[in-house]
Amino acid sequence: MKMVDVGEKPKTGRVAVATALLRMLPDTRERILAGKVEKGDVLAAARLAGIMAAKRTPDFVPLCHPIALSGVEVTLAPEAAGLRVRVQVKTVDRTGVEMEALTAACAAALTVYDMCKSVDRGMVLDAVQLEHKSGGRSGTWQREEATPVEAAAPRRRTRAKKAR
Amino acid sequence: MKMVDVGEKPKTGRVAVATALLRMLPDTRERILAGKVEKGDVLAAARLAGIMAAKRTPDFVPLCHPIALSGVEVTLAPEAAGLRVRVQVKTVDRTGVEMEALTAACAAALTVYDMCKSVDRGMVLDAVQLEHKSGGRSGTWQREEATPVEAAAPRRRTRAKKAR
Amino acid sequence: MKMVDVGEKPKTGRVAVATALLRMLPDTRERILAGKVEKGDVLAAARLAGIMAAKRTPDFVPLCHPIALSGVEVTLAPEAAGLRVRVQVKTVDRTGVEMEALTAACAAALTVYDMCKSVDRGMVLDAVQLEHKSGGRSGTWQREEATPVEAAAPRRRTRAKKAR
Amino acid sequence: MKMVDVGEKPKTGRVAVATALLRMLPDTRERILAGKVEKGDVLAAARLAGIMAAKRTPDFVPLCHPIALSGVEVTLAPEAAGLRVRVQVKTVDRTGVEMEALTAACAAALTVYDMCKSVDRGMVLDAVQLEHKSGGRSGTWQREEATPVEAAAPRRRTRAKKAR
Amino acid sequence: MKMVDVGEKPKTGRVAVATALLRMLPDTRERILAGKVEKGDVLAAARLAGIMAAKRTPDFVPLCHPIALSGVEVTLAPEAAGLRVRVQVKTVDRTGVEMEALTAACAAALTVYDMCKSVDRGMVLDAVQLEHKSGGRSGTWQREEATPVEAAAPRRRTRAKKAR
Amino acid sequence: MKMVDVGEKPKTGRVAVATALLRMLPDTRERILAGKVEKGDVLAAARLAGIMAAKRTPDFVPLCHPIALSGVEVTLAPEAAGLRVRVQVKTVDRTGVEMEALTAACAAALTVYDMCKSVDRGMVLDAVQLEHKSGGRSGTWQREEATPVEAAAPRRRTRAKKAR
Repeated sequence: MKMVDVGEKPKTGRVAVATALLRMLPDTRERILAGKVEKGDVLAAARLAGIMAAKRTPDFVPLCHPIALSGVEVTLAPEAAGLRVRVQVKTVDRTGVEMEALTAACAAALTVYDMCKSVDRGMVLDAVQLEHKSGGRSGTWQREEATPVEAAAPRRRTRAKKAR
Repeated sequence: MKMVDVGEKPKTGRVAVATALLRMLPDTRERILAGKVEKGDVLAAARLAGIMAAKRTPDFVPLCHPIALSGVEVTLAPEAAGLRVRVQVKTVDRTGVEMEALTAACAAALTVYDMCKSVDRGMVLDAVQLEHKSGGRSGTWQREEATPVEAAAPRRRTRAKKAR
Repeated sequence: MKMVDVGEKPKTGRVAVATALLRMLPDTRERILAGKVEKGDVLAAARLAGIMAAKRTPDFVPLCHPIALSGVEVTLAPEAAGLRVRVQVKTVDRTGVEMEALTAACAAALTVYDMCKSVDRGMVLDAVQLEHKSGGRSGTWQREEATPVEAAAPRRRTRAKKAR
Repeated sequence: MKMVDVGEKPKTGRVAVATALLRMLPDTRERILAGKVEKGDVLAAARLAGIMAAKRTPDFVPLCHPIALSGVEVTLAPEAAGLRVRVQVKTVDRTGVEMEALTAACAAALTVYDMCKSVDRGMVLDAVQLEHKSGGRSGTWQREEATPVEAAAPRRRTRAKKAR
Repeated sequence: MKMVDVGEKPKTGRVAVATALLRMLPDTRERILAGKVEKGDVLAAARLAGIMAAKRTPDFVPLCHPIALSGVEVTLAPEAAGLRVRVQVKTVDRTGVEMEALTAACAAALTVYDMCKSVDRGMVLDAVQLEHKSGGRSGTWQREEATPVEAAAPRRRTRAKKAR
Repeated sequence: MKMVDVGEKPKTGRVAVATALLRMLPDTRERILAGKVEKGDVLAAARLAGIMAAKRTPDFVPLCHPIALSGVEVTLAPEAAGLRVRVQVKTVDRTGVEMEALTAACAAALTVYDMCKSVDRGMVLDAVQLEHKSGGRSGTWQREEATPVEAAAPRRRTRAKKAR
């Protein structure tokens, strides 16, 4: 097990973009967009959680290098199936920021889940994926397929078996 | 925005189980299972990352209560589409551990991604979802649908556009 | 130097309330309230920062006990002099949550400062103080004086000496 | 909400100085200076807390960039009204260290509060403010007014209403 | 890999004591005791570092449970061979605090090393060991041998090969 | 107390190597090497714990500068007396990584202790020491004595006094 040595690599500008889709009931999505979730402003909390998680990635992913992030931007956009999270992370360093972008996308989505779980525990986080990276020795990588068009039919309500 | 007061709730035994599927190329999966990844033992690192992330959930999900976890177990099992992560978290506390289980599942999967990304940058994290929770006022919740049978055909290799 | 032993104390419900006043130029306050700060929603960020900081108090204040917070609420209200932060923290534990409330108040106020400092670097954080605590052996404590009525005249703009 | 991109800015030497005044009863101040506080050496603890908090600022202030601090110095000096904290932070980086200096000042002062709160719960943290910054594109900024001369009369003892 | 489930265990009072010996040149020890180390008060810093590290043990030792520590005390005493660190940690919880005591002992000793390394880089940390634990199902454990009497002759100065 | 200013120092490649010896019963060592410890793969967990601890050194050792580590490698090798931990840390920065290497060595050893303590509570961590550092103004330092040949006789089993 090792954190590979990147000391010989030059510091270069690097960018990574990751996305994720949090599938939810249409009612849940509407409640979020209308600002009617009891715990507070879901979208603001999710954006902030993403930014903070990007900074903490080396604590979260054991072999990640600690990196001086130069910028992080998190957006959440509604789709028929739920909310699409998009994170862009930038640095000028010796290694890339893919893990920071992916970690931030998970944190933003899980924050939405946390704030809405009392009304929709069946939400599913799908398609957490790198879309693009550039900079560094390995150059630019771009996901070929477009992010798949979301299925027309939203997730069916899961029927929970209540017990106790 | 508030971390809702749970002080009136009794401390009860609680369990949450979450799963996730990290889709990858068959070659990547075989390399992991054969212990041939250059950065080290992927499965051991992923399990440990999941356990550590469960403990740090309140740092990661802003409105989560700090909870005294009594047990965490992370397993990874191969499937045709990649690796399925399963996390079980237990506590005896005033609020549930769903977020801890989901956060751990993400951390375990992202750790696999991190250790293998140089050979398979197109991996996708899908189906991060709660499977089961029990304990507490809201009782038992069980996901109704079985975790979907993975598609027969594994993910196609994404063709990366290299640019410099 | 020691973290004093509280193991003999019973677990009881405890509450602490702290407040603080971030003094700023009237223009800055208006910009915040109008949602026109370039970095994003200042009030949402400040509330979330306060909640997260409350949870991290034992990392921040060396001799603080780690405590299972049961609830945290952060509000910010405009006054002529700027923004008044109010934090209420609750727990059911062996020691009080005064430090958590004070730490959260500082974090919320500093987050406002950070997001607006490019337009008003002279903001001053004043009157960070405990207002109330209850629960535990030492019982209830209530600040006697009302939070001082803010001075009628807002802070004069500080003239910065620019040098290069 | 975004952590603004500073990747285009050059790395330059930067300094920030922040101060704060922790108002307390004269007895409390004397007890601290005489080293008679039961929990241990208050001034040493406060200085250390300030240094450690400076390093953790990006966890505390959500939109702060993680920065490689090159030096931190924390001093506490007695005044008639209590203790004045002064923090100087230096870096060679793409963005300034104002937030690190302010955060450290709060942490140092709150550590004093924590260690003495059993004898003086009414202490008030006032005048947390930037005094000076230099370096970077926006150049030097210097607070114009001198730190206000502390009021001759020390804070009156707050009479706590004890209740059970 | 798992964090074993302790949810069935009762919460009981538990104590653990760990010690360690940081071997150093006599000159270094004298300089520390005389308060003549340039970086500041070494003993105060070491005690505080030990207390803070005890609280962070679950971040440091991956399979450790997060525990509500009720008390931590760190002392450092001079011996002919250097400084002996002694840490006592107490809790009322479902699992013991041996790891917290050992982690705190390491942190206190490494803090001394850090503050004095420019004058004595050859210091050696020896005999980090549990001395005593009590409470919980496995009952009391007491190290049988006394902590070994330190060798009469202090560590010889290591001659460093300087190269550039 | 201060974190000394290193802003004037140039960024140079730096390496530090630290070692430590965790003394244990021969049975314990064999059980670890055979992969028969109930809590999981001890060597993998110890390596990972060392790497993660290296990254967190500034949280653990109060006056340590936050540093951009470029590589960390942790190995554990069996000896008659137990397990020898060896850590190499690299950076390209303004200050050295001795503390990171020593902290990682402690974390790796304590992780082994934690996972095996139910069968061998008397394990002792000895000889935590810097072996080598290079880079920076003070140049290369090399421990003169070879790491002492371990005593032929393994540690005697400590007879625990069971009580309760």
